[in-house]
Amino acid sequence: MPKLWEKGYDLDSLIEEFTVGEDYLVDMKLIKYDVKASIVHAEMLEKMGYLERHEFIKIKEALEELLTLVESGKFCIDPEEEDSHTAIENFLVQKLGEAGKKIHTARSRNDQVLTALRLLYKDELKDVCRHLKGLRSVLRNFAKKYGHIKFAGFTHTRKAMPANFRMWGMALCDALKDDEIMINLTIRLIDQSPLGTGAGYGVPIKIDRNYIANRLGFSKVQRNPIYSQNSRAKFDYLILHCLSQVSYDLNRFASDIIFFSLPDIGYLIIPENLCTGSSIMPQKMNPDPVELVRAYHSRIISKALESALISMNLISGYHRDMQLLKITVLETFKDIKDMLRVTCRIFEKIQVNGNKCKESLTEEVMATQEVYRLLMEKGMSFRDAYRVVAEKYGSDRK
Amino acid sequence: MPKLWEKGYDLDSLIEEFTVGEDYLVDMKLIKYDVKASIVHAEMLEKMGYLERHEFIKIKEALEELLTLVESGKFCIDPEEEDSHTAIENFLVQKLGEAGKKIHTARSRNDQVLTALRLLYKDELKDVCRHLKGLRSVLRNFAKKYGHIKFAGFTHTRKAMPANFRMWGMALCDALKDDEIMINLTIRLIDQSPLGTGAGYGVPIKIDRNYIANRLGFSKVQRNPIYSQNSRAKFDYLILHCLSQVSYDLNRFASDIIFFSLPDIGYLIIPENLCTGSSIMPQKMNPDPVELVRAYHSRIISKALESALISMNLISGYHRDMQLLKITVLETFKDIKDMLRVTCRIFEKIQVNGNKCKESLTEEVMATQEVYRLLMEKGMSFRDAYRVVAEKYGSDRK
Amino acid sequence: MPKLWEKGYDLDSLIEEFTVGEDYLVDMKLIKYDVKASIVHAEMLEKMGYLERHEFIKIKEALEELLTLVESGKFCIDPEEEDSHTAIENFLVQKLGEAGKKIHTARSRNDQVLTALRLLYKDELKDVCRHLKGLRSVLRNFAKKYGHIKFAGFTHTRKAMPANFRMWGMALCDALKDDEIMINLTIRLIDQSPLGTGAGYGVPIKIDRNYIANRLGFSKVQRNPIYSQNSRAKFDYLILHCLSQVSYDLNRFASDIIFFSLPDIGYLIIPENLCTGSSIMPQKMNPDPVELVRAYHSRIISKALESALISMNLISGYHRDMQLLKITVLETFKDIKDMLRVTCRIFEKIQVNGNKCKESLTEEVMATQEVYRLLMEKGMSFRDAYRVVAEKYGSDRK
Amino acid sequence: MPKLWEKGYDLDSLIEEFTVGEDYLVDMKLIKYDVKASIVHAEMLEKMGYLERHEFIKIKEALEELLTLVESGKFCIDPEEEDSHTAIENFLVQKLGEAGKKIHTARSRNDQVLTALRLLYKDELKDVCRHLKGLRSVLRNFAKKYGHIKFAGFTHTRKAMPANFRMWGMALCDALKDDEIMINLTIRLIDQSPLGTGAGYGVPIKIDRNYIANRLGFSKVQRNPIYSQNSRAKFDYLILHCLSQVSYDLNRFASDIIFFSLPDIGYLIIPENLCTGSSIMPQKMNPDPVELVRAYHSRIISKALESALISMNLISGYHRDMQLLKITVLETFKDIKDMLRVTCRIFEKIQVNGNKCKESLTEEVMATQEVYRLLMEKGMSFRDAYRVVAEKYGSDRK
Repeated sequence: MPKLWEKGYDLDSLIEEFTVGEDYLVDMKLIKYDVKASIVHAEMLEKMGYLERHEFIKIKEALEELLTLVESGKFCIDPEEEDSHTAIENFLVQKLGEAGKKIHTARSRNDQVLTALRLLYKDELKDVCRHLKGLRSVLRNFAKKYGHIKFAGFTHTRKAMPANFRMWGMALCDALKDDEIMINLTIRLIDQSPLGTGAGYGVPIKIDRNYIANRLGFSKVQRNPIYSQNSRAKFDYLILHCLSQVSYDLNRFASDIIFFSLPDIGYLIIPENLCTGSSIMPQKMNPDPVELVRAYHSRIISKALESALISMNLISGYHRDMQLLKITVLETFKDIKDMLRVTCRIFEKIQVNGNKCKESLTEEVMATQEVYRLLMEKGMSFRDAYRVVAEKYGSDRK
Repeated sequence: MPKLWEKGYDLDSLIEEFTVGEDYLVDMKLIKYDVKASIVHAEMLEKMGYLERHEFIKIKEALEELLTLVESGKFCIDPEEEDSHTAIENFLVQKLGEAGKKIHTARSRNDQVLTALRLLYKDELKDVCRHLKGLRSVLRNFAKKYGHIKFAGFTHTRKAMPANFRMWGMALCDALKDDEIMINLTIRLIDQSPLGTGAGYGVPIKIDRNYIANRLGFSKVQRNPIYSQNSRAKFDYLILHCLSQVSYDLNRFASDIIFFSLPDIGYLIIPENLCTGSSIMPQKMNPDPVELVRAYHSRIISKALESALISMNLISGYHRDMQLLKITVLETFKDIKDMLRVTCRIFEKIQVNGNKCKESLTEEVMATQEVYRLLMEKGMSFRDAYRVVAEKYGSDRK
Repeated sequence: MPKLWEKGYDLDSLIEEFTVGEDYLVDMKLIKYDVKASIVHAEMLEKMGYLERHEFIKIKEALEELLTLVESGKFCIDPEEEDSHTAIENFLVQKLGEAGKKIHTARSRNDQVLTALRLLYKDELKDVCRHLKGLRSVLRNFAKKYGHIKFAGFTHTRKAMPANFRMWGMALCDALKDDEIMINLTIRLIDQSPLGTGAGYGVPIKIDRNYIANRLGFSKVQRNPIYSQNSRAKFDYLILHCLSQVSYDLNRFASDIIFFSLPDIGYLIIPENLCTGSSIMPQKMNPDPVELVRAYHSRIISKALESALISMNLISGYHRDMQLLKITVLETFKDIKDMLRVTCRIFEKIQVNGNKCKESLTEEVMATQEVYRLLMEKGMSFRDAYRVVAEKYGSDRK
Repeated sequence: MPKLWEKGYDLDSLIEEFTVGEDYLVDMKLIKYDVKASIVHAEMLEKMGYLERHEFIKIKEALEELLTLVESGKFCIDPEEEDSHTAIENFLVQKLGEAGKKIHTARSRNDQVLTALRLLYKDELKDVCRHLKGLRSVLRNFAKKYGHIKFAGFTHTRKAMPANFRMWGMALCDALKDDEIMINLTIRLIDQSPLGTGAGYGVPIKIDRNYIANRLGFSKVQRNPIYSQNSRAKFDYLILHCLSQVSYDLNRFASDIIFFSLPDIGYLIIPENLCTGSSIMPQKMNPDPVELVRAYHSRIISKALESALISMNLISGYHRDMQLLKITVLETFKDIKDMLRVTCRIFEKIQVNGNKCKESLTEEVMATQEVYRLLMEKGMSFRDAYRVVAEKYGSDRK
């Protein structure tokens, strides 16, 4: 099957393999959205008179058939076809002949892929929000169950003042609430329909971009065609940044869990079926899944960076460089959802060791309370009371 | 003058120099906000009965005097005092004796610095928005003046289809509008009052956090003390990300300007008083300021990354590591405002070379229009019309 | 088949899937080295008396059989087995019973994986060197063929002074020579045998680490067991940095090729079978493979960063976080070799347009030569001669 | 005083301020090397006949006078002069008239700054090596003093097997040895004389580059002028990477020290004069300097990244973007030396708590030894012995 731009010469085979890369596989995630947008695109073409009614009906039926094939796993993109856009047009041409050759009227692969990606990314971001809500609910349950138990909180990795598990669990819950706000804003920012901007300079015939935007559920049209293309990697960077804010919070709490479940601290107990062992040390119960949650953050930070770099110092307009980000963004969605799912499981199963928590509340953890007792009962100024108590600990050290 | 935590031993002098670092200088940016928050804090302390009326009045007067000294450049933080928080308490103690020792009641340096930073960052973000609005207005003027002039737009750094300077100028304008939305959200997210969360575990006496939040103009109280501390570097990362979205757009257009003003392209003319020369080549007129705008993006991306790394894999609660971010964030605010100011100047002064633009619109740039002519006039399908035109260019190449 | 650390409980299935991740696939790249190191490990065990002669012979035969299965693609690691280390022990136990249970004597998976990775990475680095040598040879041919052709070189993306294609091609050649030096040093640094360091604290029986190192071709033993573990991610970071130095150079020259083959510059011609087209613009010949070479650098830089982050702020000793780097490093080896292969092809096929090069050598490009003519012939000082020539260009602009 | 490229127009004042930036301050670090290289450059000019003997003598004397002024702190670069290169030429012209105007013969600021930077960076790298040697000597003393004390080593932040302080201290020592090898290679790679490559395309008169290289102590001439310019940011990236390998190791051991000095672990005691306190909690002794050592690694990693980004996707030849890296590299040298100095102090002062170490060696830490006891004494296979011991710990948990 031909490529869309084929012009009677054969691409060097090494170059062909390199440029296609894994696109034909990656696009299997995308093709569903590409087909749906193609149906709406065809509707618009008919509405504007670029397709006859009967052509449109055949195209729509064929695309719906393709959608069924895709959804039932019976369709594959041939590496020679490069991408889902080519696969769709070839499918239509093979099936319908002339009518199929009209589907690309008033569009370019540039706006086509951008449209499909935005639809996919909006769905993925909403899915992340669902996972966030799920984890927040788990955290509220955790806080209900263990929230009353007090333990010595840390600053500078040193015992500081009394905390409790409600304060700790809800700290993550509040953090994720802020992340949800960020993600919702991101959804709102990317919710702009680029279809009709062609290769970044519009198309030279009259089209109805509002119609397309409405039918595809976009809240507005992204008018400027240059900005549409320029916003591709920029929005990828924004999306990955958002996800890195989530992984930021999960990294912090994974670190807490590893630390709090250290036998020497002992506040938390990770049940054995969440732990793995060592091939050499028989006594070991290692918090591997928690460590991996922690580590995924490095990966996500790096991928967010990659999305910022890909178009650095480049001029406006599409460059093939952007292609690399499809897989980067999709992998990151998988990673963040895995992190969220595993963190949920951990918070569902983790146990608090009340005795160890109680033991942690030594006299020194109460030193600040002692300062305030002096202040309230003896009428000392804060700084004088502080110094009186400090002296005691100073002499203890000697 | 003593440090707040002094306990009768001398810090190793190398260690002292290293831990203080440049804080005593950096905090000169901060102290204004720190004093203002201290006044409100004192109000609350009086309201709750921790300060006598007469003590409060003396403290308030002293803090206002300090504010005047700061604003008139007559106050310096002594390196031995470490930071603005210590300088403020020492000033009060030296001036008022006992009453001064009460100012730290119900607060820690941790929530104090966080409060001052948030107030400062909110102001800085609003200032960036003002600069964005200014640049957007310059861009609209540019589009008005030159917008009608057409030129060959590029994809893959190759001539593609006709564009015009309205489309180009407004592409940046639209991008900056999206950035403004991001910055406004960021302001909203960080607009939470942390004062009263102490060192991350609250304070053991009753205080009125709502009162403080209202008086300082925060839209809400950040209830959770652990999240308050954890959000410190997280919000820095969010802020720097936002600024990197702005620098992202400016980097793109700086690249465009450098490319479009290449004599071989020639769409744009950078006037000589925005250019610098070479020490060896007498003919050279180099776009140095545009190159530096482009380069600042690398710096901002790197600083955004630094803010993500600083707390990676650390447990909840304050760590001294955070200290490094104060200077990082402040430098980035300076950088982004310099970039915006210089970009404004460039767009005010840059000229369009109408002749070169016209010359760029060669037949090949019209190839897509030719496809659509065949489609509209001859009733050919898009793909057939595309192939007819493609053949012509194919044979041209041979 | 059991995991090595199995202790009679079932791992939570979500957690199992998450912790194994893609290790069972990634390790298919590793298992060859793991088996080879296991044979040498068994030799040492026999030598030290931990294996009977007959046990050793059976183990060696079984491992050689496994190697054959692996090399002929007839062996797969079961996801339940987690990794190649488990697969190897299980294979031996299933085949040999008791003797198989002895293979893990005096080792841990920690030093086992490190050994296999080092052997693999040494081979991969040498393979990169072979690719570098190949490209350098292509560059010398390019320089021989086109080296004499002069063109206007650029500074600040502005025409500067005459250059030629020998200077340009050999600039990449020299850069790659420096990269080779770096890679060879990296090979030398990682060429330390970690086998016998166990889980990072040695093994409590007497072993012969020199024997193992010699037989595996390591140039020395990495004595310190803590450093052995700590150097895992550190050496990954070093390796990826080296590869990013190579991609740095390729990125630079990909950018040059895209720029020099701009029709408006026209020094270089990319033949059509290295170009792809547009789905909408029939005239387009886009340098997609060169753009992808350019873009891979962003990916490699990001992956190098990931390797630096993974162990940031962690204490000494193995953490499961490291697991993520196996795939990261292996993907980067694939990426860099693809970049090198494609860059070779490009330099083999690219053509120089002598006419366009000649046209680029306008009078202004000769301005510096004119300065030196005044200096040599008229005896003017450099700065005076510079100003005389500069004045001419200044008045040209007016 | 004029700029070198002045041509009778005034630079826009905002643009002037922006392009000069902090160069006139940064270059005060550089000017010493710039003057020294200028003396050698003048020698070569005389040797080749471009300077009369008497001109050369006057120039040399003037440059030596300038060097004295610089070294005694009596010379400042005027912001209007932009950089040290301009300041030097202006100094000579003001002092000597005509002869001074000849100093720039056969050079450009591009190769001039590169030469001065290389000389500076070589010195700085050697200084880092001296600091590394110093720390390694401190570590050997530490190992001598405390090396025999055993404690429970960790994997996955869980007690694993017995370690001792010799193993731990020497792990850092060995790591720094590898870093030294890296730094020495880096010195060797950058030890190429770029003087004479002009603005990246050579100079159009005959010069003796070998003479210059020898006299400046470079081990070879960097022949290719394009590679000379391209290697500027590339070598900065290499240098910063090297420094990040050092900070990598220091970050790891700072993390260890913070963890090992946790009262709950207690292996190490940080003496109070290396600790700072809290403004609210009187009992606190915080490891602030160790935390800052840890945090500097984030900064260095970010700066190394910045150096990789600055020239990403740019074509060959100098761009003003490079200017930003001067301050970045210099700041990083300061940072790494501060880290090394403070780490030295910490290892000189830190104490080992023998009792806590002894207590850490619980039965479970000896589980692996127990496995090997069964293996040696009872002749069990490793895996069977492992399972026997594992069972014990399994039932303990129940």
